[in-house]
Order: sequence, then C-alpha cells, then structure tokens
Amino acid sequence: MEEKRWSDYVFYPRAVAIIGASPHDIATLAQMSTKIRERLFLVNPNYKEVRGQRCYPSILGIDEPIDYAILVIPASLVPQVLKECIQKGVKVAQIYSSGFSETGLVERVALEKKVQEIGAGKIRLIGPNCFGVYSPRSGLAIIPEAPSTAGRIGVVAQSGSVAESLLYFASTHNLRFSKVVSYGNGLDLDAPDFLEYFAGDGETEIIALYIEGTRNPLRLKEALRQVARQKPVVAIKGGVTTQGIRVAISHTGALGGTPEIWQAIFKQAGVLEVQNLKEMLNVLITLDHSPLPSGLGISIITNSGGFSVIQTDYALRMGMDIPKFSPETIKALRQIVPLAGTSIANPLDAWPIFYSLSPQGNIGEIIKIVAADPNISSLILHFDQFRYLRRALGQEVKKHMDLLTPLMLEGCAWAREKEKTPVFLAVSLDPFLEDEEERHYNLLLKKEFAAKGFPVFASLEEAIKTLAYLRQWTNKLHNHPAIAMN
Amino acid sequence: MEEKRWSDYVFYPRAVAIIGASPHDIATLAQMSTKIRERLFLVNPNYKEVRGQRCYPSILGIDEPIDYAILVIPASLVPQVLKECIQKGVKVAQIYSSGFSETGLVERVALEKKVQEIGAGKIRLIGPNCFGVYSPRSGLAIIPEAPSTAGRIGVVAQSGSVAESLLYFASTHNLRFSKVVSYGNGLDLDAPDFLEYFAGDGETEIIALYIEGTRNPLRLKEALRQVARQKPVVAIKGGVTTQGIRVAISHTGALGGTPEIWQAIFKQAGVLEVQNLKEMLNVLITLDHSPLPSGLGISIITNSGGFSVIQTDYALRMGMDIPKFSPETIKALRQIVPLAGTSIANPLDAWPIFYSLSPQGNIGEIIKIVAADPNISSLILHFDQFRYLRRALGQEVKKHMDLLTPLMLEGCAWAREKEKTPVFLAVSLDPFLEDEEERHYNLLLKKEFAAKGFPVFASLEEAIKTLAYLRQWTNKLHNHPAIAMN
Repeated sequence: MEEKRWSDYVFYPRAVAIIGASPHDIATLAQMSTKIRERLFLVNPNYKEVRGQRCYPSILGIDEPIDYAILVIPASLVPQVLKECIQKGVKVAQIYSSGFSETGLVERVALEKKVQEIGAGKIRLIGPNCFGVYSPRSGLAIIPEAPSTAGRIGVVAQSGSVAESLLYFASTHNLRFSKVVSYGNGLDLDAPDFLEYFAGDGETEIIALYIEGTRNPLRLKEALRQVARQKPVVAIKGGVTTQGIRVAISHTGALGGTPEIWQAIFKQAGVLEVQNLKEMLNVLITLDHSPLPSGLGISIITNSGGFSVIQTDYALRMGMDIPKFSPETIKALRQIVPLAGTSIANPLDAWPIFYSLSPQGNIGEIIKIVAADPNISSLILHFDQFRYLRRALGQEVKKHMDLLTPLMLEGCAWAREKEKTPVFLAVSLDPFLEDEEERHYNLLLKKEFAAKGFPVFASLEEAIKTLAYLRQWTNKLHNHPAIAMN
Repeated sequence: MEEKRWSDYVFYPRAVAIIGASPHDIATLAQMSTKIRERLFLVNPNYKEVRGQRCYPSILGIDEPIDYAILVIPASLVPQVLKECIQKGVKVAQIYSSGFSETGLVERVALEKKVQEIGAGKIRLIGPNCFGVYSPRSGLAIIPEAPSTAGRIGVVAQSGSVAESLLYFASTHNLRFSKVVSYGNGLDLDAPDFLEYFAGDGETEIIALYIEGTRNPLRLKEALRQVARQKPVVAIKGGVTTQGIRVAISHTGALGGTPEIWQAIFKQAGVLEVQNLKEMLNVLITLDHSPLPSGLGISIITNSGGFSVIQTDYALRMGMDIPKFSPETIKALRQIVPLAGTSIANPLDAWPIFYSLSPQGNIGEIIKIVAADPNISSLILHFDQFRYLRRALGQEVKKHMDLLTPLMLEGCAWAREKEKTPVFLAVSLDPFLEDEEERHYNLLLKKEFAAKGFPVFASLEEAIKTLAYLRQWTNKLHNHPAIAMN
C-alpha cells in the first residue's frame, strides 16, 4: 500500500473533528452543511450536542481514527489540545484560532513557537490564524455558501478573508474551485507546500495565490518557478508598500521582503501578478472560460459614444489598442448601420443596431463582421442599453430583449468559435441601482452569457483591464505550456 | 425692463416647441414627463396628436411666442426648419439631430457650416448632436427618469451619454443638479459660454465638466481660470490618447489639442481633473455632502484583515497615508477591543466589534476614539460584514442590524461634527450578487447613511481614490475660496 501524504489527509480526510464546535461557529456550520458531516465529530466539553449532533468532551473520547482536526479554541488552550490530537493519532491539525505571532506581542510569539515545538515531527499543522480548507470532493468546507461542485482552480490564500470572498462570490461569477486553502501564519505547512501540491494535482489546472510573506523564501521562489512553468499562476502580494508591510505583519505575522524582490520573483517565474481581489476574480474567470487575446487590438461595440472616448483613453493607458477597422470592415458595416447617430469607427457606437431585429443588420451580424477584422484580437460587447430600449419600446421591451439576446449570443459564439476571439460582455450595472427592472434584465443577460462560458464584467474598464493583464502575460510567456490549455 | 440673455431662454423658457415630436422620441417623452408640458408645443406634419397632445404641422402654425425649440429631425432638414424658427422668433434652437461634422464626411461638415451661417446673429444654437438641457426649475428635461428637485451642481457635458448617465444615476447616488447641458458639437453656444453662465449663477455652487474639445480654446482657458477661482470645477477631458482623440473627433467633431496642454490648463486653473464618470460621481458626492480631508491620514475600520493589507497598499500608491494610531488611541481601543482575531492597528480589523451592542465597546465608540486621533484626517467605515453576522446570528440578524446601524450612524455623525472628519461608508456590494438578503441590508445601510449626508461607495478602493483626488486638489488650492464652501 502506498504511503499517504499530508495532502491526502488534508483534502480527502476519512474523518474530521472540530474541537471547540459550537452552534454559531462558522467552521462547525460550514462542515455541517456538506457531505463531510457524515464523517464529522464534534468536540466541546460545554455541549452535549450541537445542532442535533452528539458533542464529545474530548477528542480522546472518540473511538474512530481522526485524520484532520479543526481547532476553534482560545489560543492559550492550543498547546494542550494539540498534545491530545497527537495522542489520538490525528494527522493534520488546522489551528483556526488567532492570537499568535500576528499580534506582535512577545508572549504570543512564544506561544506560537511552543505550538510549533509540540507539533514538530508528530503532526502537520495548518495555521494558526486561518480559515482552513475547502475541498468539494471530500466536503471539507470554509463557509456554508460555497459551491458543492468542483472546478479546476486551486487557491492558496494566506488570508482567510480572501479565501472566504472567493468562495462566497464563486456562484455569482460562475467560478468553481478544485481546492481552496487559507493557511494564515503558515507555521508548518506553508505556501510552497500547497503550491507544490497543486502543481502535481490532476484536479487543478489554474492556481491563484494570495501571499503576504513566508518563512521559506527560497523554497517559495523555487516552487513558483516550477509551478508557473506547468500551470497559470495568478498572484496578489499583500503588503508591498511600507505601511502595507506593517499591516501584513499584524495580520499574519509574515515578514514580507521588499516589493522589488517579490515583483522580480513573480516576473521571473512567469506569474501573472494582479493587485486586488476583483482583478484576480476577473483574470480567473477569463483563464477558466475564454480563449486568450492573441494581440493588442480590442474592438468595443457599445451604445454610448461619450464613454467610447473615455474608454479608448483607458485602453491605451493600459497598453492595449483600439485599432481602426480595416476598409473591408468599414464597407461591410456601412451597408447595414444607419449614418445618423452612429459613427462607423472603433469603438462602434452602434445604438440603432440594438433596435434592429432584421436578419440583415442586427447586432449578431455586426459582431461577426467586427470579429472577422484582422486588426481585432478581442471583442467587448458593452450593453448599457436597457433603459434606452425601455424608453422607446415601453411594455414591448421584454419581447424585444427576448429576441435581441439570442442574436447577441449567436454573434458572440460565432466570433469565439470561428475567429478564436476572446469575447467579453460588459454590463454597466451600478451596485446601488434600485431600478429593479433594469437590474433584472442586466442580470438575465449576464446569466445567459455566463451560461455559454463568456466572461461577464460589471464595467467596460474591468473588461479592458483584464484583457491587458492577460495580453501582457501571454506575450511574456510565448510558447509557454500554460498558455496551450485554453 | 432688463434685457433677457440667451441663458434666460435656455434655462427658463416661457414656451418650448419640439419639432419632430413623436410617441417614442426621448426628447418628447422627457418634456411630457415634467411641468414644462404645460408650455410645450409639439410639431410634426406626420401626426395630428402625440400621446394625447395636439401636434402642429409647422412651428409657424403656433400662435404663442416660442423661446426654445428642440429639433429632432433628420440632419438634412435642419437648415429649412431653422429658417422657420428664425421666422417664428425663436430665441434658442437645440439641434438634437446628429449627422453633422462628427461623421467626418465633407458634405456633412458643409451642412454644419450652412446651419451656422443661417443662425448667425439671428438665433442662438445648442448642438448639433446633443441631448440639450435639464433645468428642474423650468421643467426642461433630458430623460424622463431625472429628479424633479434641484440641487447645486451644474453640469457642462459635451457628450449626451455623460449627461444622461449623471441624470439617470442622480437618485441612486443622492445627487441633485441646478442645471445640466449636453451641447454636442458646440457650433454656437460652447463650453466657455456655459461655464461663464454657471460662474455667475446663484443656483450653482459646484461645476462638473465633460469636454472633448472646443472651437474656442483661448476663451475656454480663460473661462476655466475665472470659474475655478469661484467654484469647485471637476472635469474629465475625453480624448487624451492619440486614439481617444480620434474617437472624440468622430463623436463630437471636436479637435482636441494635446493632453499635456489640457492637463496644464486644468492644473493652472485649479480644476480637479478625474478620468471617468464613476470618479466624477464620487468626487461630486463628496463635494456636495462632506467636509474635505485636511490631511493625508486615513483610518479604515473594517472586518476583513486580508483586504486591509491590499487596501493599505492601494492608499499608499494613491499618495495617501494609513498612519499608526497614537498611543492614546491604542490604549483606549485596547480596553474595549478583544485581543483574539483583532489587531489594534490601522486599518482596524474590528470584526468582533460588529457583534457588540453594549454601551461600552460598540462600533460607535470605536469610531469616536479613532476620529479623535490627531493622526487621522478621514475615516472610512468598511461594512462587509452582513453575511458573517447572518451566519452567526441566523434569524436574529435583522434585529441585530436594527440596533447596530444607529450605533454606526451616531459614531460617524459625532466624528463629522465634533472632529470635522470626512466620514465615508464603503459597502462591498458586488453588482451581480444575487443574495437578495445581503443586497437588501447593504442597500438599507447605504440609504440610511446617504440620508444623513455621508458619502457611500460600493468599494473601499473608490472611497480611498476619492479622498486622494480631493486631498490633492485642496492641498494645491490652499486658501482658495472654493474650499471654504464646505
């Protein structure tokens, strides 16, 4: 029999214990919401049962072998409970508790050191100060709202908030993960361990990393180099300014290194560095669903000329290009786009076209003509049109949207399949908008596009920035095996 | 009797005609939705009536004097109709129609020139290729959804889309306008005319400008210098990259000048330049409602440490500061914030405090302590907490929010009044989020804060960037009268 590795116990534990389980504890709630509850043991001397399930006074009172224990207890109790876990033969302990080196207090740093010494060679540790592991195939969970189905993105997140947000917004953004790890202070198992694991994991094809610092800089550097050669790695370095580094130290106790060192490490390894979670989400959505841009040229098909100007400026500032259409494209468009109110130019301010449902000259035809232009590598369909259609069509707008949406989808699908063009939908949806009808139709459009695998963004700027990140990255990694996956 | 100026006819017309009125035309719909409908005459030879109101075959058939005519007709008909307007004694004609110099076609440029010659000295023109005027005191309207109440922001927008968006999102963002002008190609009345008008207009205290180019660069430069000395001017220059300039030409026919010239003009005049509409909205919200930051130091009170690190990096990159708390602040906070899971540092990762409703140690107390810190000039309360509270409190979350919200509001009001601290609420609200309960509570919180005059943003980054813009601007304009207004 092949010997099991730490990762088998972490991602596919046979039985799990929560020490410090309680009715409102999020780790307890999360595990009880998935299939892992069938192999879950609750431990807390203060309860006889929690949410209808038996609660043991100590892990030593459980008869079955436990692979993985989650410690949700005051930091001061961790040393004693960890000893009991070792006695019980637990393979991996996830120390959820905070109050260790991240506080910056001498006695808390000493407490963390003590925990390390107790565990060394006897049990593997995740944390402390972390949310732990999401593994949809086993059911191990971080929050109750995460998807129950698995995807191909693996996440290594030093911060619990980052892991939590990615999981909470997964369904909203049509993302699925193979595994997600929040590892906090990284006392034992650290970023390089998880990265190396994901590199060899057949269930993981794209890797996301949020890191503030590491105790193992040389191992991390080497791990990134190895991993990014095989699979796309998207990373955020938290703490790149002097004060950001100070905050990172008080968040996970991590010592950061200088921003220049990190940037150089990412760059040399071929890691795609982004700056915040929204950018990471957007890049992941695109890597997961879309062909990648083969050049700089973007075409925007929109309905608001005023914004075309600002957005063209933005694309150019981001290092992308909004090239002129070829003469053939202009000729073809001129035949079907009315002159008044529309400029035959890129961005294509094509508002009258959103009203046309005729077999010739509808928005689907326009998309195909633009996608076939040799100057155009990516296409963004910007839909900011609902309220205009509603003003003109009144109650008829519903019927119109029902006919217009398949035309847009068909054009976009053609562009993606025939021209291998990355096609994005940008829906201008103000988060505070209380026009429920406009919201309804924008969300519907978003869902219909997302269901067909098109990345959907809540603003044109986000779509442009995502293309810029990916183009910069693919350009550097010419012939890189990680590119071939899409 | 004092002689009337063009602006009297534009913003307070006694009677208005829409030439080319039709049942689905937005200009017609917009005027018919306000009190101007009582002094509105519809003209279109193809209709006997439109939406129940009599329609005249020609403006010459109307008996009453008409101050202001809106031309919604094909470009080729504009010369003839304009002559009729002059014959009728119309004072100002707004040429809604597009299809002029913005097309770049020689014959269309000539058509525009012809229109100019017909009007010269006989009638003032707004447009062509524009949405015209919103003036809530007279009822003149651009879209049916705009607020019927007036505010103190005047908008000069070369682009109709920009004017339309500001009006459409006014209610969502708690903004009100004195007047909004979309003037398109600026054939006669141009940006300097409107800026000079707003400078002297007692109903306007803040000015927003979207401009792509002008036929009167020297007048514009002088107007900006004069106006920005008296009132805050927030501006976007559309078309600053080579391609942006090309797109601007095909949008409003405007010749742009180089970006460096524009930047220098704005800078010398003391104009606050932003780059897109969201930034403009955010700056206007703050100018309209809030004290301005007196220094660089921001404190963020949040519930997600992982994002604190990224956000601190972002604030530093934006030229702001997330300073350490003073020893007194740390001492005061230490007494009421529990140790585990919370770092007593700026940003204050104060998640347990969102659970506390006790008279001591609730979020209101925390806000007051932080606002009193001499290092802190602005405060951002980041609420990303609802789903965490719901997990822990279940059905009790509603009652908890009802008690928590007044505590937050009270602390923020104290900080604004006693410390003159600008206080912002940042609610992380993903526009695509379909968790309707989380959306409901975030919107409720947004409304309660907005009702008390606090700027509310949909992300912490937006709040930080807005503070950075305003701090940069106030810093340059030390002792500027425009600052004193807040």
